[in-house]
Amino acid sequence: MTTTPITPTGLLPTLPGPAYTDPATFLREQERIFEARWFCAVRAGDLLTPGSFRTVTVGRENVLITRGRDGALRAFLNVCRHRGARLCTEEAGQVRRTFRCPYHAWTYAPDGRLVAAPNLKDLPGLDRSAHGLIGVALREWLGYAWVCLADEPPSFEETVIGSVSARLGDDRAVERYRPADLVLGRRVTYDVRANWKLIVENFMECYHCATIHPELVQVLPEFAQGWAAQAAVGHGAAFAQDVEGFTVDGSGGFGRLPGLADEQDRRYFATTIRPQVFVNLVPDHVILHRMFPLAPDRTRVECDWLYAADVIDGGADVSASVELFHRVNEQDFAACERTQPAMHSRAYAAGGVLVPTEHHITEFHHWVTSLLA
Amino acid sequence: MTTTPITPTGLLPTLPGPAYTDPATFLREQERIFEARWFCAVRAGDLLTPGSFRTVTVGRENVLITRGRDGALRAFLNVCRHRGARLCTEEAGQVRRTFRCPYHAWTYAPDGRLVAAPNLKDLPGLDRSAHGLIGVALREWLGYAWVCLADEPPSFEETVIGSVSARLGDDRAVERYRPADLVLGRRVTYDVRANWKLIVENFMECYHCATIHPELVQVLPEFAQGWAAQAAVGHGAAFAQDVEGFTVDGSGGFGRLPGLADEQDRRYFATTIRPQVFVNLVPDHVILHRMFPLAPDRTRVECDWLYAADVIDGGADVSASVELFHRVNEQDFAACERTQPAMHSRAYAAGGVLVPTEHHITEFHHWVTSLLA
Amino acid sequence: MTTTPITPTGLLPTLPGPAYTDPATFLREQERIFEARWFCAVRAGDLLTPGSFRTVTVGRENVLITRGRDGALRAFLNVCRHRGARLCTEEAGQVRRTFRCPYHAWTYAPDGRLVAAPNLKDLPGLDRSAHGLIGVALREWLGYAWVCLADEPPSFEETVIGSVSARLGDDRAVERYRPADLVLGRRVTYDVRANWKLIVENFMECYHCATIHPELVQVLPEFAQGWAAQAAVGHGAAFAQDVEGFTVDGSGGFGRLPGLADEQDRRYFATTIRPQVFVNLVPDHVILHRMFPLAPDRTRVECDWLYAADVIDGGADVSASVELFHRVNEQDFAACERTQPAMHSRAYAAGGVLVPTEHHITEFHHWVTSLLA
Repeated sequence: MTTTPITPTGLLPTLPGPAYTDPATFLREQERIFEARWFCAVRAGDLLTPGSFRTVTVGRENVLITRGRDGALRAFLNVCRHRGARLCTEEAGQVRRTFRCPYHAWTYAPDGRLVAAPNLKDLPGLDRSAHGLIGVALREWLGYAWVCLADEPPSFEETVIGSVSARLGDDRAVERYRPADLVLGRRVTYDVRANWKLIVENFMECYHCATIHPELVQVLPEFAQGWAAQAAVGHGAAFAQDVEGFTVDGSGGFGRLPGLADEQDRRYFATTIRPQVFVNLVPDHVILHRMFPLAPDRTRVECDWLYAADVIDGGADVSASVELFHRVNEQDFAACERTQPAMHSRAYAAGGVLVPTEHHITEFHHWVTSLLA
Repeated sequence: MTTTPITPTGLLPTLPGPAYTDPATFLREQERIFEARWFCAVRAGDLLTPGSFRTVTVGRENVLITRGRDGALRAFLNVCRHRGARLCTEEAGQVRRTFRCPYHAWTYAPDGRLVAAPNLKDLPGLDRSAHGLIGVALREWLGYAWVCLADEPPSFEETVIGSVSARLGDDRAVERYRPADLVLGRRVTYDVRANWKLIVENFMECYHCATIHPELVQVLPEFAQGWAAQAAVGHGAAFAQDVEGFTVDGSGGFGRLPGLADEQDRRYFATTIRPQVFVNLVPDHVILHRMFPLAPDRTRVECDWLYAADVIDGGADVSASVELFHRVNEQDFAACERTQPAMHSRAYAAGGVLVPTEHHITEFHHWVTSLLA
Repeated sequence: MTTTPITPTGLLPTLPGPAYTDPATFLREQERIFEARWFCAVRAGDLLTPGSFRTVTVGRENVLITRGRDGALRAFLNVCRHRGARLCTEEAGQVRRTFRCPYHAWTYAPDGRLVAAPNLKDLPGLDRSAHGLIGVALREWLGYAWVCLADEPPSFEETVIGSVSARLGDDRAVERYRPADLVLGRRVTYDVRANWKLIVENFMECYHCATIHPELVQVLPEFAQGWAAQAAVGHGAAFAQDVEGFTVDGSGGFGRLPGLADEQDRRYFATTIRPQVFVNLVPDHVILHRMFPLAPDRTRVECDWLYAADVIDGGADVSASVELFHRVNEQDFAACERTQPAMHSRAYAAGGVLVPTEHHITEFHHWVTSLLA
């Protein structure tokens, strides 16, 4: 399943600096990427009971996601159809039966139907079915609710599942970790003052690992060479011989998730699910990042550490395990933040260069460029 | 004097969301509404002595209003004619005889004339009369100074006084309360993160009253039906039978202002004086709101509670009286603030709907639209 | 050397208000003035040892200035050529031998050459000489490093040195103070909420001195008349007879710098070195302001008080000396800050007027206007 990284030579250009700073470019990215493609919004496990809800920023929209009485998750624009008040202002909560707008009390069922409004009987002209909440497409996968604001969403199979398979070389590579069955052990939210594309590029390459990730390199020695896990299809980085688990101190983790193939043991796999998800796979846990681009120079990142249910239910201490990638995150985001200001410089007006171990980033640039064209 | 509210049916459209967020629209509103129409700036009673002054934001301008030695109020652009320093930076104050610019000491009389400047005798080219403060039209009515930045102000009688008469159905309905003779009992300033039009619309309708104004509905039971005082010409909402006064706890107020007609007793009347004033009339006091639109999503509101002079001079406790509408204000502005963010949503790109009890808001929308056209 | 100030009569126009507020105008100023002319960036004495560095904002760029092993100062755009990270994020510091980018460890010599990068031997396509830091022209004069971002800098002799000579009427007037040999006694940084041109205009005229600078006028009585030191070529303002030194309390200073001409004693000379430097010369010290325009309405000003080395090395108390111009600075910047808001007013849409003692400011306006044309 592992393949030897190929070695391209020479330098390739990056995107020009303005791609990371121009408000008009960011607006097009919102329209054509984050509001047009499948977007990983919330962990399904955060919405266990009927009436539980979360509100999330998807592109420029606030989206309400809630579980219905029938057990299904649904997503809506979080806007009352009457006079436009935000229906739910909390980031998370639970309603008993309905969503009642706190302005004029228009009331919606968890499936979006308008079920009540003051003086409704005096409104013969009101076609209730035409004034339900505006729905948003939703799919569940890997234990997350993915939403799409497009009127005609692209194929989930091709644009989401297919892209993971292409990267990991195996349709079932991710699913063997059964992320949907795992349980949230820790969540950390980062407010990063950098463009989302800098964060993607940073995640895709490991040329920086030796410089800024001492702890990670100790666990994954090949990262010191600068070869990224993502540079070759299906490649997983091997743990150092003296390391027991994927932890900040090399201590043992929590065994091996059931169903993993032998070649998945003692290895770290990573993939980017465009446009805004990073998945990190190690034998005993999964780390999943969701990015929420807020401005050309600002991105919120939520990072989930997921473990087998018995690990969390048994009260195991996941600190050594969480701490490793939390440090990696902080190191990476600091690097992105010191890169963002120079995107305005005439020194970067035509961009910089990618060395061979970064060449695969070019494909990401082509993907972005083609979507904005 | 009261008339039965008419009952229109069906739904009418609101303004589209961008009308509440677009900076270019807000700029046009500043130019064609707040800087072109009569604008209620300050309470005349705040400027009792010659040389007392207030500075207020009218549209995009800072206006200096001051009382002259002759007792008259006058308004000027608050800008020194020499090098443009702001003449008065305080919001309120008192000068002895003149306004002296703190930069180069150009000195102006309270009537705006340039009366002194250093080396003035060495300035043979200086035509003093051409370098006085730039005056702004000013009218006093209801105890307030109304200013107009237009070169040729519209008729005060038609656009201000006439609009009140049309709403209340009687030329003297407001004047019977003699607001100019009343005394300020309390002033509260609110910094509202919402477009000024959302605040107007909120004030015009009472469909939200049952939902967000429990205290107000207890005093004015018909408001629970959603019929706004402003929906019908001359209509006043009757106090609840068990209520003694317009107070947060239904306790008695301060009698009946002299000159009120019987049909004004135990009733609440309200009117909007476009573009930025709300007047609330109850038997023993008057509540007057002035809005100062600062940005598409930000409006400062000053609310005055006015009582008979003997009430205030006698040291009466106006708390129960003030508290009622202070709560109403906080409830209303919270509703406006939760509406503002959704004005950006695609869900509101074409606007929302007005139910029959809100239909009279349409006329306000037409008024705005016609002024911006 | 002194000449009698001429006395023009009448009024001249200023720039119109939008020149001080319009973002497009400010952008053109950045491009055609601050990024195109010589800009006084740092005091050379702040960079004494090889490897010491400062980072400064010049126009819209961040510039790294460092002293090489050969003792020479050099300036570079502070951007790594690989992926655009800011090379140095500190405002000041010291490297041992090289500048190493903290992202991917590309490493540059203090002369800008790329000297190392991870896997550099695997990068046959990498022409090191093409990936050194981007250099910026640098000249030392008066003890400061002046930089120019233009590809073809204008003549330093004509645009910087020549302009001082023209103002002071003598090529050697400034150099007699030997500012390069002086030592920094105090530095104060001011964050001024005003356009940089308001600060220049303020520095150029003294019509405001009687109004806002009581301490300065006590030392330089002729300033009370409003005649600026800069209004006539070569004119120096005489100290008051009862004053011993240029201090806040008239106490004695620190003698007379060696090399000064008799006519420079007991006199204050001042000049503006466009676009962003003010020089103040008194017998025992030199005060030099550098402005860093950050936004149409925001300018950072760094002010250095420079003394003979033996004064500072001897531990003399320079407080009375510093305090005088520190107060002048605070008084001036407060005046500029109260002028900035009115630049938006319709009252200043066509600008204000310059009285005769301010007429020489017109030439500054012509200079700005011609560069932006």
